[in-house]
Amino acid sequence: MLVVMSTQATPDEIDHVLAAIRAMNLTPHPMPGATRTAIGITGNIGAVDPRTLEVLPGVSELLRVTKPFKLASREMRPADTYVKFAQTTIGPGTLTMIAGPCSVETETMILRTAEFMMENGVRLMRAGAFKPRTSPYSFQGMGLEGLKILEKARQKTGIGIVTELMDTDNADAVEASADIIQIGTRNMQNFSLLKRVGKMRKPVLLKRGMSATLEEWLMAAEYVMAGGNYNVILCERGIRSFSDHSRNTLDLSVIPPAKKLSHLPIMVDPSHGVGKREFVPAMALAALAAGADGLLIEVHPDPDHAASDGAQTLDFAAFKKLLENLRRLAEPLGKTVN
Amino acid sequence: MLVVMSTQATPDEIDHVLAAIRAMNLTPHPMPGATRTAIGITGNIGAVDPRTLEVLPGVSELLRVTKPFKLASREMRPADTYVKFAQTTIGPGTLTMIAGPCSVETETMILRTAEFMMENGVRLMRAGAFKPRTSPYSFQGMGLEGLKILEKARQKTGIGIVTELMDTDNADAVEASADIIQIGTRNMQNFSLLKRVGKMRKPVLLKRGMSATLEEWLMAAEYVMAGGNYNVILCERGIRSFSDHSRNTLDLSVIPPAKKLSHLPIMVDPSHGVGKREFVPAMALAALAAGADGLLIEVHPDPDHAASDGAQTLDFAAFKKLLENLRRLAEPLGKTVN
Amino acid sequence: MLVVMSTQATPDEIDHVLAAIRAMNLTPHPMPGATRTAIGITGNIGAVDPRTLEVLPGVSELLRVTKPFKLASREMRPADTYVKFAQTTIGPGTLTMIAGPCSVETETMILRTAEFMMENGVRLMRAGAFKPRTSPYSFQGMGLEGLKILEKARQKTGIGIVTELMDTDNADAVEASADIIQIGTRNMQNFSLLKRVGKMRKPVLLKRGMSATLEEWLMAAEYVMAGGNYNVILCERGIRSFSDHSRNTLDLSVIPPAKKLSHLPIMVDPSHGVGKREFVPAMALAALAAGADGLLIEVHPDPDHAASDGAQTLDFAAFKKLLENLRRLAEPLGKTVN
Amino acid sequence: MLVVMSTQATPDEIDHVLAAIRAMNLTPHPMPGATRTAIGITGNIGAVDPRTLEVLPGVSELLRVTKPFKLASREMRPADTYVKFAQTTIGPGTLTMIAGPCSVETETMILRTAEFMMENGVRLMRAGAFKPRTSPYSFQGMGLEGLKILEKARQKTGIGIVTELMDTDNADAVEASADIIQIGTRNMQNFSLLKRVGKMRKPVLLKRGMSATLEEWLMAAEYVMAGGNYNVILCERGIRSFSDHSRNTLDLSVIPPAKKLSHLPIMVDPSHGVGKREFVPAMALAALAAGADGLLIEVHPDPDHAASDGAQTLDFAAFKKLLENLRRLAEPLGKTVN
Repeated sequence: MLVVMSTQATPDEIDHVLAAIRAMNLTPHPMPGATRTAIGITGNIGAVDPRTLEVLPGVSELLRVTKPFKLASREMRPADTYVKFAQTTIGPGTLTMIAGPCSVETETMILRTAEFMMENGVRLMRAGAFKPRTSPYSFQGMGLEGLKILEKARQKTGIGIVTELMDTDNADAVEASADIIQIGTRNMQNFSLLKRVGKMRKPVLLKRGMSATLEEWLMAAEYVMAGGNYNVILCERGIRSFSDHSRNTLDLSVIPPAKKLSHLPIMVDPSHGVGKREFVPAMALAALAAGADGLLIEVHPDPDHAASDGAQTLDFAAFKKLLENLRRLAEPLGKTVN
Repeated sequence: MLVVMSTQATPDEIDHVLAAIRAMNLTPHPMPGATRTAIGITGNIGAVDPRTLEVLPGVSELLRVTKPFKLASREMRPADTYVKFAQTTIGPGTLTMIAGPCSVETETMILRTAEFMMENGVRLMRAGAFKPRTSPYSFQGMGLEGLKILEKARQKTGIGIVTELMDTDNADAVEASADIIQIGTRNMQNFSLLKRVGKMRKPVLLKRGMSATLEEWLMAAEYVMAGGNYNVILCERGIRSFSDHSRNTLDLSVIPPAKKLSHLPIMVDPSHGVGKREFVPAMALAALAAGADGLLIEVHPDPDHAASDGAQTLDFAAFKKLLENLRRLAEPLGKTVN
Repeated sequence: MLVVMSTQATPDEIDHVLAAIRAMNLTPHPMPGATRTAIGITGNIGAVDPRTLEVLPGVSELLRVTKPFKLASREMRPADTYVKFAQTTIGPGTLTMIAGPCSVETETMILRTAEFMMENGVRLMRAGAFKPRTSPYSFQGMGLEGLKILEKARQKTGIGIVTELMDTDNADAVEASADIIQIGTRNMQNFSLLKRVGKMRKPVLLKRGMSATLEEWLMAAEYVMAGGNYNVILCERGIRSFSDHSRNTLDLSVIPPAKKLSHLPIMVDPSHGVGKREFVPAMALAALAAGADGLLIEVHPDPDHAASDGAQTLDFAAFKKLLENLRRLAEPLGKTVN
Repeated sequence: MLVVMSTQATPDEIDHVLAAIRAMNLTPHPMPGATRTAIGITGNIGAVDPRTLEVLPGVSELLRVTKPFKLASREMRPADTYVKFAQTTIGPGTLTMIAGPCSVETETMILRTAEFMMENGVRLMRAGAFKPRTSPYSFQGMGLEGLKILEKARQKTGIGIVTELMDTDNADAVEASADIIQIGTRNMQNFSLLKRVGKMRKPVLLKRGMSATLEEWLMAAEYVMAGGNYNVILCERGIRSFSDHSRNTLDLSVIPPAKKLSHLPIMVDPSHGVGKREFVPAMALAALAAGADGLLIEVHPDPDHAASDGAQTLDFAAFKKLLENLRRLAEPLGKTVN
């Protein structure tokens, strides 16, 4: 951290800042320059709110070191994290597919989808039993009944289940049914929920908040890991910008810096990113080329009659073709798709 | 809603869209033009996902009517909502102040603040017992003990208590202690929490999500109201943009359209909006002039040693001066401050 | 500036960074900490591209001091700048109005508007002869003929003329006709144009780019001032964000930090900020309360038939009422309106 | 276009809107619904400002068809545009590389770069003689002398030259020297400049404005094409968002909708997109997979000592490796790299 004093700061003001730094149990390093003084700070900075220094008289600016996360940090743990399941492993070297409908609608469609996925080498299925909807008047998901259907699908086909947890009330039920607990974009900073899944044994798929910086996202992962659950999988799904040609702005460029700062695997959800089915395959291929460790894709036996998000959902034929193209592209990148 | 067909759409494609609209129990109104056909749609559109039409062959664009909220809408209820308490009433004609520290730290400082507020004509005090913090290693609030302190302050001084609810687990405790339940920006689309406060009898202060459109914000209010709790107070607290001179971008221009679309009162939190105490008073005055029905201001007896958010917190003297300036400015605007 | 080394940086890597800093003729100040080393830098940093250091091996992060502007800076020149004309002076203590139609349409309407303004105490009129339009098929302004009409209006009424310059080709003509040269939002970083107006004697009204940070805006002012023209007036007109309830997001919160960092006067254009006439007055009042030194308002004798931007334009009656309200509000703020 | 009336609109207000539409020479199609009336509009809508209707009494909302561009539109010209040079052709099926330093620094380095590019099969070199810099105190480019150096490089090696035009003053000189005229992100809505290059015979590389929507970008292309120059190449280079892990937010997801709406080729500049050299290759590969027709890459013989943008610039070895990886990835995508 660096405190930059104003060119007109008085010696008294500088002394006051030095004292304030020491009062925080930190060490100040004053550096007098030609026009102004700067003050470096060392010590355990994570525990203090640096903005307090910014408002002291004579301070012009405060420059913060922006990496307060620890457990999620590659500096602390250089080796890549691999998240292991009965069905597969998520991590570098593999492009892991998680595909399926937006929401559980009927047992028939879930079973049909699970069978189709297993036949095509996809080992994890997504489907929401609890659905976060912008309007209280929209379909809110089948709830506990939906979880039962998902369990049946796993029992019959062996497929792994990825499903969203929206609140602590349903935490036990979702933990019992799911192989991966999904935390949605709107809950990325629902800290009570993050603490709850931090105590679970099941891996957590943590979607990026639609207005979260990379640092805030890794801090959300830190909440889960601080609770003892180290199996966190990041998932980029588009951020909010002024740009209006797509539902969200899929930020593929977050993958390389996320990989640099953190050892956690990172997946991409192009379905929510672009919001229109015809544009999903191109962004799925781009995510693979950008270095993603996996993809979340919305697939439905009959997307035109899906209960939610049909417009961004692929049918079986389109998904099968995408899988082929992904496998072809994965080869020169030294990856396998499963 | 309007479906705009491509200039190259075939008659068959147009017929297919007309059929799809009818299958949704809506009425299509085809309008042939010189270069292309457009299709108007009437009926109960709220229940369908219009994006489904957008992906049909021959469709160029879909134009949506963007007001699916009902109970929050001024069209449904033209008269302004006034939220009434023992201490005061929030609504047009009054600038209601809610002031106090970011978090409950000790009984002494809470009592001192409550007494100072009552002496200065402020009838509602804010203070967090549960604190949403970006880092799991930051002070998370005093929890239930903090609620007890707030109750004591009300008992001794008569001040009304505004405090944040972060999860359903603490819903009963917060409901019992608070006069207004605050829902924070990160929980604006925590739908489980919204449904829970929808069943409460206490008024809800609903902060705007930092990347929420006005429509999404009013839909969040609709969640609360759909549960039976009509006493919702909106609170603008800054949105996320590229602009980096302030902590957030305080969107005062949302006040007039919010007032036009909805009958709910709207407050402004300039402390979180700008993030630096020296800039708070100017934006507080601007919010009053823009038509706000109230202000949330962070005030602390000793901001430099506050446990959280000290950099954006006023001390008693600065707040007293702001109050005077607000009262002077309120007069020509035909408002009273309390 | 501060270079933060990785926790795993080797002594060799640290030495390499120290050498690179010295090679830039800057002074490095190494600060060893418990887990990592940081290196402060002093010297004339403005001339170097700090990003070069960021890519050296072992460097974790680079923290930059972000105020490379000089002439526009309050640190260099503490006293407020007042821009003086025959008609009035722009600067603290006064709310200066600049009002008039989006574009020059006919001599009659310009004369009528100029007379109305002078009768109501407004001494500066805006009107575009050259219009930046998103579509090449929209009305592009009357050009040189429009400038002649504006000159006539000044001759007859004495009003000062504010009009936009879009390119160096018309620089001489616009300089000859205008009292204030307006640089539009899309040209805020048209550096060739900024250099050209830097050589003029007429004051420059510099609109903020719709995606410009405060620093970039002040650097654009610096371009003009570096050419010798110190009479720069800043003008906030709304930034681009995800928020869709208004045409742009009017960033009133930029006023206090702009005033702190720079001695230049700052005006606000609520007409372009909100884009709908019914919402303009509230934001004009808010801008005054936030500390603006003046307002740009679009006014037209018959807005429903204006050639451009009619939807955000006030008619004479609405503007007159706004003027009254501004005058009433200016009093307790210790300002006069003219 | 669709006008949505308020639920409380009177028959008189509806009639007034119908009349206003007819006064614009458009045809209104009233559609009475259960709770409100909507009015469809057909006719030549491009010429009118629809916001005028939005402010009429009783109007609740206006839904616009958002494609006013014609020459750039695929609806008007379904076949892909291929831009042809002596050296190569830009368009679908090929990934065309444009590589070279940020700015012309010396003849030696330009010649060395040109030779390196030709040896490695790259037929187009980028290098700026005129540089748009945020600060007036930064290196502004070598100007006309730089153009001479670029011409020499072409003469000696046969390489095609891509260089930026910043203003109409240097239009003749740049047109004479360049094979492709680059319009930078800050000038995307410099309409005077767009009109000037519209009259040129050389192809134009039009970078996306950093806060431009896809529609505004295509309207900027329309300005060039309306002047008679149909050889426009779009170039995505990152947009401005809140996200701070990269210099800009590279919006690869714009490629598929741009291809759908327009027949123009689209390239990607990952160097400016991400701003750090280590992250450039991943995004170059991703751009290829997303469907880009070409790439702009900053390459310098000695990036650590480049006069500008060294931090995002590859050295020869890194670029050669990237080329190999691009060629390997292009094969399964059915593309060739040149």
